[in-house]
Amino acid sequence: MNQPTDYSALLSQVKWNADGLVTAIAQDDLTGDILMLAWMNETALLETLATHRGVYFSRSRNKLWRKGEESGHTQSVKAVLLDCDGDAILLKIDQKGGIACHTGRRSCFFRQATAEGWEVIAPVLDETR
Amino acid sequence: MNQPTDYSALLSQVKWNADGLVTAIAQDDLTGDILMLAWMNETALLETLATHRGVYFSRSRNKLWRKGEESGHTQSVKAVLLDCDGDAILLKIDQKGGIACHTGRRSCFFRQATAEGWEVIAPVLDETR
Repeated sequence: MNQPTDYSALLSQVKWNADGLVTAIAQDDLTGDILMLAWMNETALLETLATHRGVYFSRSRNKLWRKGEESGHTQSVKAVLLDCDGDAILLKIDQKGGIACHTGRRSCFFRQATAEGWEVIAPVLDETR
Repeated sequence: MNQPTDYSALLSQVKWNADGLVTAIAQDDLTGDILMLAWMNETALLETLATHRGVYFSRSRNKLWRKGEESGHTQSVKAVLLDCDGDAILLKIDQKGGIACHTGRRSCFFRQATAEGWEVIAPVLDETR
């Protein structure tokens, strides 16, 4: 029988903010596209490490957010990285369904700055979202 | 003579946090590598838009941080994107010198989670940092 993995060495290096959170970037493991930016508390990071699924902490709903639990658009996590000062996480993921954004777009970063304002540069792929 | 660009349409869509900041991701425009995560206040975003240089707000030093002003590793900004809920910025950049991290590494995300702990996966390219 396998011993359960001890994640304490990983968790102890993370610098949580005053709300117990770190920022988490989700990046497409194959294309390199940045899909979303969210937040994690310790439980979310622990569950992400243990299950290899993208799990975040929703600040608006103030609860754990297992990405895709409602939409079906789950994230399979290929790698978890930590930045130099320990307060940002990078997840390299495979985004099921190819849609990370709640607007039905591939990425949440679909508005680009122009001299006239923010220009929408990506189509809605799922009209039901 | 050119009119100065009016950035108010851009700035009005950004949702600053209680400290007047938004998160900002810097991504290599060519390779797609994520180089760093930092913060911007309104002045930093405005100056980034106007000068096409990466400008942030340093929370530790509590002042505007023109990336590269000390190290020479400036960032040429190719595109500025905003996420769906308006509280995260993505900069697509050309990193002068190829080194974004203050540790002398290419990217700040140089530690990867393993069962034993965070494993350093990227070399120090500039030993003088």
